[in-house]
Amino acid sequence: MHAESDVAEVVSQVEPVDEAWRSRAWERLDSLSKPPRSLGVLEELAARIAAVQRTERPVAHPASIVVMAGDHGVAAQNVTPYPQEVTVQMLTNFAAGGAAINQLASHAGASLRIVDVGVAADTRGIPGVEQRKVRAGTFDISQGPAMSREEAAMAVMAGVEVAFQMVDSKTRILGTGEMGIGNTTAAAALASTFIGVPPADVVGRGTGLDDRGLAHKVEVVSQALAVNHVDPEDPLGALAAVGGLEIAGMAGLVLGAAARKTCVVADGFISGVAALAAVRMAPHAAGYLFPSHLSAERGHRVVLEGLGLRPVLELDMRLGEGTGAAMAISILDAACRVMTGMATFQEAGVSAGDQK
Amino acid sequence: MHAESDVAEVVSQVEPVDEAWRSRAWERLDSLSKPPRSLGVLEELAARIAAVQRTERPVAHPASIVVMAGDHGVAAQNVTPYPQEVTVQMLTNFAAGGAAINQLASHAGASLRIVDVGVAADTRGIPGVEQRKVRAGTFDISQGPAMSREEAAMAVMAGVEVAFQMVDSKTRILGTGEMGIGNTTAAAALASTFIGVPPADVVGRGTGLDDRGLAHKVEVVSQALAVNHVDPEDPLGALAAVGGLEIAGMAGLVLGAAARKTCVVADGFISGVAALAAVRMAPHAAGYLFPSHLSAERGHRVVLEGLGLRPVLELDMRLGEGTGAAMAISILDAACRVMTGMATFQEAGVSAGDQK
Repeated sequence: MHAESDVAEVVSQVEPVDEAWRSRAWERLDSLSKPPRSLGVLEELAARIAAVQRTERPVAHPASIVVMAGDHGVAAQNVTPYPQEVTVQMLTNFAAGGAAINQLASHAGASLRIVDVGVAADTRGIPGVEQRKVRAGTFDISQGPAMSREEAAMAVMAGVEVAFQMVDSKTRILGTGEMGIGNTTAAAALASTFIGVPPADVVGRGTGLDDRGLAHKVEVVSQALAVNHVDPEDPLGALAAVGGLEIAGMAGLVLGAAARKTCVVADGFISGVAALAAVRMAPHAAGYLFPSHLSAERGHRVVLEGLGLRPVLELDMRLGEGTGAAMAISILDAACRVMTGMATFQEAGVSAGDQK
Repeated sequence: MHAESDVAEVVSQVEPVDEAWRSRAWERLDSLSKPPRSLGVLEELAARIAAVQRTERPVAHPASIVVMAGDHGVAAQNVTPYPQEVTVQMLTNFAAGGAAINQLASHAGASLRIVDVGVAADTRGIPGVEQRKVRAGTFDISQGPAMSREEAAMAVMAGVEVAFQMVDSKTRILGTGEMGIGNTTAAAALASTFIGVPPADVVGRGTGLDDRGLAHKVEVVSQALAVNHVDPEDPLGALAAVGGLEIAGMAGLVLGAAARKTCVVADGFISGVAALAAVRMAPHAAGYLFPSHLSAERGHRVVLEGLGLRPVLELDMRLGEGTGAAMAISILDAACRVMTGMATFQEAGVSAGDQK
């Protein structure tokens, strides 16, 4: 039970964000040479980042996106149009710079780190893929638990350790991403568990199921929940029962970032479920969490409501890999630039308005 | 009538975007190593830009934002909490780099060009402010026409000429922005005219009116429309009657960009009304136009519906200056990077999915 006690220790380190700095941030924002609150969401983001970073001059750089990769035994149940080999093929694509996340991380000025926390194949030959494999893929959740409780804790700690390393190397904004064929199925099982809604409310088309495939996926998730008797009050147990290694790893990223008072940007549905698991373990982690976008994947809206947080963007994206996180990191950067770079009314010699 | 015939000549040069290139763009997008259409709006934007630029490799750089500045006689009617002097004070702030648009243009990697097309004060002492003043502010639209028809055409041509210069110097994405105390009042009068809705549907709080101020502003716009007998089928006449010099200038930016087959990103409510004027003159200009965001200013939604175009972002912004355009230019850049930088399934050696 070594890893589980490590997780508990990290959870105990998560403190609330600093409301005094949030208030100071709003004072400064309202003094800048623009009509008060006229930058809307950008100002709200700047104030939130200031409360995390405990400063009037928040920054969004250096930013890093971590892609956690893992495979899912449930992929054998025909829940996705893509074969399991695509997980490792996509890691090769990431390494070569050919995937969407390569382009969008570059767009956001964010570095990219690829972590194998549970891919079924050997990835040691792929340059730049960090080896933190807890096991080579999960068991099929429609037949029994995905992994042991200790393995789930080890996967969480893999994420925590990566987050700690990133913060130590000055990362100020950490983005989460994932790669794992079949992982919307596991994420739906977790979402159904944590939120307490039927599988049909959170199962979506993933990478591209038709209506029949969707109905089948609902059945598979229902079976996984029936077989595993998951306790919604036990997030680690839920991750072990119906989760995924990369999902547990992303929960660890959120916990690690929050424990080190660092902003963490969650990607879409799967990242959102991982963030929800982290917040269920450490409720104050929500203060450090920035959902990036509302995914087109059904279930994400429910997960965001469960987190009580509003996404920055709504671009009908449903790709994963951290692509939504990359888009939002760019918006957070804009928010920080406004807060740190603008002149006040007084500095600019501009007349402030009178309410009329 | 020299300027008006120049405008007519530019209008005649606006051709449709190229649908064949749009189809080729979708073929390429669907071959890239991601589930088809999984990048949502980013793919739609990439296809639209490809249709404008007639290429499979669209680019969003160099990008430039042009801020058109002008004053409004109607500011004397207590329609805004800010004194008219703020127009010129803000130009000084732009020149010093202290305004929101400086930070956000920099964020987007866009250059910034400030054009005085009708400021009431002398701006020649402000470094970097381009002198294209048609007249020193409009007349009060609640008492009579804002300007003569020839002056409106001259202001449109000022925008056209700036757009032509930008395209000649390789600008691939042109953003519109404005500065002009009182200009939401003129924009509301134009929107009411073009869309055929009552002033109350399009008059908003601008930089910060309270309920009483808002009701007064509705009255002022109603009076402007009653006094001026505007013909909605005559966009140039409408700009002259109840418009503004910077609004006409922005309409010219849209016409000039479209005539030169270049993408143009409209900022918020005022820029949107200017774009609508341009599209009423040259309907094919809509193909080159990218509304950036849905402004919090009432009336913008109606204007976007009038344009038949969907905004990229919804961030509750209502600042103007081109700030929303800057945010959207960054998104367009991401879209172009996806289209030009990603590997195809075949290039990446990734198995494509089968529909299930």
